[in-house]
Amino acid sequence: MSVKDNEYNGVPLQWLFGEEKPGWRGYVEWEKEPEKKRVANEILKSKTFSEIPEFQFAPLPKTNPILVGHRWKEYHEALGLKSIVDFSWEMVKKEKHDMLHVLDFPYNGETLAKYILGDGKITQNRHHFVRNHGGVPDIDPDCFELEIGGLVNIPVRIPLRDLKDPAKFPQRSVTVTLQCSGTRRREQIEEYPGDGDELINAPWGEGAIGTAVYRGVPLKKVIKIACGGKLPECSHFEFIGADTYFKKKEVYNYAVSVPWRKVRNNEEVLLAWEMNGEPLPRIHGAPLRVVVAGYIGARSCKWVYRINGLSEPSFGPVQRQEYLYYNQQVFPSANNLTYPEASYLPSKSQIGKHNVYISNGFSIQAMPVSSAIMSPKTKDTIIHDGKIEFKGWAYSGNGNWVERAEVSPDGGHIWYAVAPEDMTEKYYYAWRLWKIEVPVDAEGWLEFCVRTWDSSNNTEPTYVRSAWNWDLHVTSSAHRIKIFSVNRSKPATAKRLKQLEELNEPFLPITKPLEFTIQKFEDYEAEYKKYPREPLE
Amino acid sequence: MSVKDNEYNGVPLQWLFGEEKPGWRGYVEWEKEPEKKRVANEILKSKTFSEIPEFQFAPLPKTNPILVGHRWKEYHEALGLKSIVDFSWEMVKKEKHDMLHVLDFPYNGETLAKYILGDGKITQNRHHFVRNHGGVPDIDPDCFELEIGGLVNIPVRIPLRDLKDPAKFPQRSVTVTLQCSGTRRREQIEEYPGDGDELINAPWGEGAIGTAVYRGVPLKKVIKIACGGKLPECSHFEFIGADTYFKKKEVYNYAVSVPWRKVRNNEEVLLAWEMNGEPLPRIHGAPLRVVVAGYIGARSCKWVYRINGLSEPSFGPVQRQEYLYYNQQVFPSANNLTYPEASYLPSKSQIGKHNVYISNGFSIQAMPVSSAIMSPKTKDTIIHDGKIEFKGWAYSGNGNWVERAEVSPDGGHIWYAVAPEDMTEKYYYAWRLWKIEVPVDAEGWLEFCVRTWDSSNNTEPTYVRSAWNWDLHVTSSAHRIKIFSVNRSKPATAKRLKQLEELNEPFLPITKPLEFTIQKFEDYEAEYKKYPREPLE
Repeated sequence: MSVKDNEYNGVPLQWLFGEEKPGWRGYVEWEKEPEKKRVANEILKSKTFSEIPEFQFAPLPKTNPILVGHRWKEYHEALGLKSIVDFSWEMVKKEKHDMLHVLDFPYNGETLAKYILGDGKITQNRHHFVRNHGGVPDIDPDCFELEIGGLVNIPVRIPLRDLKDPAKFPQRSVTVTLQCSGTRRREQIEEYPGDGDELINAPWGEGAIGTAVYRGVPLKKVIKIACGGKLPECSHFEFIGADTYFKKKEVYNYAVSVPWRKVRNNEEVLLAWEMNGEPLPRIHGAPLRVVVAGYIGARSCKWVYRINGLSEPSFGPVQRQEYLYYNQQVFPSANNLTYPEASYLPSKSQIGKHNVYISNGFSIQAMPVSSAIMSPKTKDTIIHDGKIEFKGWAYSGNGNWVERAEVSPDGGHIWYAVAPEDMTEKYYYAWRLWKIEVPVDAEGWLEFCVRTWDSSNNTEPTYVRSAWNWDLHVTSSAHRIKIFSVNRSKPATAKRLKQLEELNEPFLPITKPLEFTIQKFEDYEAEYKKYPREPLE
Repeated sequence: MSVKDNEYNGVPLQWLFGEEKPGWRGYVEWEKEPEKKRVANEILKSKTFSEIPEFQFAPLPKTNPILVGHRWKEYHEALGLKSIVDFSWEMVKKEKHDMLHVLDFPYNGETLAKYILGDGKITQNRHHFVRNHGGVPDIDPDCFELEIGGLVNIPVRIPLRDLKDPAKFPQRSVTVTLQCSGTRRREQIEEYPGDGDELINAPWGEGAIGTAVYRGVPLKKVIKIACGGKLPECSHFEFIGADTYFKKKEVYNYAVSVPWRKVRNNEEVLLAWEMNGEPLPRIHGAPLRVVVAGYIGARSCKWVYRINGLSEPSFGPVQRQEYLYYNQQVFPSANNLTYPEASYLPSKSQIGKHNVYISNGFSIQAMPVSSAIMSPKTKDTIIHDGKIEFKGWAYSGNGNWVERAEVSPDGGHIWYAVAPEDMTEKYYYAWRLWKIEVPVDAEGWLEFCVRTWDSSNNTEPTYVRSAWNWDLHVTSSAHRIKIFSVNRSKPATAKRLKQLEELNEPFLPITKPLEFTIQKFEDYEAEYKKYPREPLE
């Protein structure tokens, strides 16, 4: 084998991995082409790529993008697919506005707190978070068709215009919160570093979540109307995306699946082309994406071009090898297990790099109850009059809705419940934004946390550590922030703040000492004499 | 007033702040010269200096020195005293070896863990931590004399050679642990930032502590033999150092005091010229320093040239305005207090920048029980055979000695006690170094902490937060570290480590995924079929 830049055994790469069909740029079919896949994997394995960034042992850079996706850029370039990288960033610039760019490629962008709170219950398209697993393909909607095959009665290819024809398929709009299961991962990283594979290159804060109204057709209707229904042995539906995905230097199309039991609930699995009344943005999956309500965002496959009926979950690595929820540390019942059977079962395994058997993780599908304080931000100084207002989001997956959000001023003992009128409406598949004024007497550094109760009476673990896991997924513990409280309702504090204003002395940062002396030395001396340090005798 | 560089109203600064007496370079007398002090303060207040570094809201730099003492360098330069800055750094280079430089000027240097553990119960002079409050004066021992005055029967001036004459004063050696009350301050900063004045520019880790054998004469003997005793109203002894100190742009000589009740215990307050059998290094106070056993290091005044009998503690800012232990947050009993009387008493005050009345803090003298794990270090990966060895120091002040050190593998529930033979000998005034092997079964991230019990049955608070205080002093809570445990006594783990060795695959950092796949796909599939994700019906 001879691999040069843009050549494989003397053959130009564009002859190997060129466009599949007219109007479908940036899409390479891998799953149906084992020979092509073999050549691509050979090329990838013959090359050396950048190391995985080891940010987990050091603070994140303050840059935007926070991380640069060297490796996936290099993978694409090695296969002559650099145009996908460039087009993807063009789409970021065109379709997104004022994002926190967590990773530039594949693009991971977080919604700033001001837009989560400011956009209202629906997140604007240009602000909605993005978690892509590959580049953005450039597909002409007029050329687009959806293939459906596998365990269905009739395998079909449906042009997009037919799918969008309300005379052929009944349409639905659904308000859906999508979130990456890595939301708030930063908190787990700060506690203990974990796996550093591709997936982890998303040190999300609290903004990898967003809510939109999606319009499209329920997959169930399409299976019924177009395919004449599923075969009896079909229990899962697999979605294949036109983006190119990599796992351990092998190439794939993005592939995930959901159970038929999910699909059969009509509005829970939608084939969507509209987002918030506008055409679906390319970066969000145009011309067509899946929207799976109540599930991890990863199942809502973007640029879906093929759907397969299966008798078990997809074998795509995203489905089987990633988004797994590992146990933390488990004390084994026996030490004398033999290798390699030693650690397959959670009850016999320890979790760490050297014995993370994929079998040890269970696949994350439905999302648990969780929440976050979006305002104020941790380490803010808050000057208030005895009450501090907190705002944030609260969500639960799988059709559970949020019943109550509560804020604790003492780390989790006393809880103040948000009033119903201070939460946005209930939706089966969407978050509720909330706000609450909490009475705060004390001044100085205080810790506040939020927790949520859902319609199944689930609530959140109290500490990050309680649910830490090797892949750092599903940070659903009570979200905690530290703030410096300055209570102006106290006369002494009010007078001091006024005095500072008159002296034109800045209060922030609070670590900076004041220029003037608060206590007159004679007052100090008088106090000292009144309450001396040492005992009488 | 006209202040130019090196001039004050046209007068060169060296005429104003020149050498006091032959052989005493780098020493300016401020306390006895109010006119000179007034001019210096005028000069300082007419100038603008660098801002206080705001490191507390961001991670510390990885540089050595960690922080650069711009401000104090500039203060010295403004008074024409730059040679003190230069001489001080020369002494660092000459007298210290392989230190963690926390601040270059005034010099704060921390002992590396390897020397705290490797030097044995006594810390070598060149490794012993240094916390200086000003520059190092350059005093010829042959010219040195000690003044004693204030509330004593006979004020005297004693040449150093007479003080060192065993025929005149009885000598003593004492093994003493000195520590800065800022030891382990980093933990408080990481939890919540605090005051950012000069004093805080010492973000110490666990190495601002050291033990040495000091030789000299007990102050009590000198007072008795040379001064004919103290006057009845004398209850404190003040130590004045030849270094120049600054507080809010005013100039001082370093001044602190200890009670007569401390001095009267002979070996507890020593005037020392020898450290570990060698002449006292200049950076540690030569020609003469005070060593106060069991107290905060700040009382062990270096370059002491004057001692005063007083009826109350020294008015030096280091004594009265710094090294104060503030309360954390206090819920006031009343809100309707009037200004400025509002916040003098702890029971009525909130602690924060805007109402830190000096009266609210109590003066730190005797040090509490505390300890630290020096090996392993936090976030280390430890490959072990079912036991992990921990090593560290344990100390208690005020003549209390360490009775027991204990390590907890579960955050503070189970505690393993160090065996008596695994601790260094007991001293009234010194630490005990300890080591212990703790059985560790679990793999993955674990948290360990240490606590100590002293001879008065004192032990340490469990969490940093429990004793957080505005000036970030006395971090005496159980010291916690996180380590990644890899237990080779488990056959599966032993085999994996061997396999990695054979494949020449590095294990560290643990966040980096392994190149090869641990679990064969067919094994994974078999497991998946045996234990499917979804229920039967």
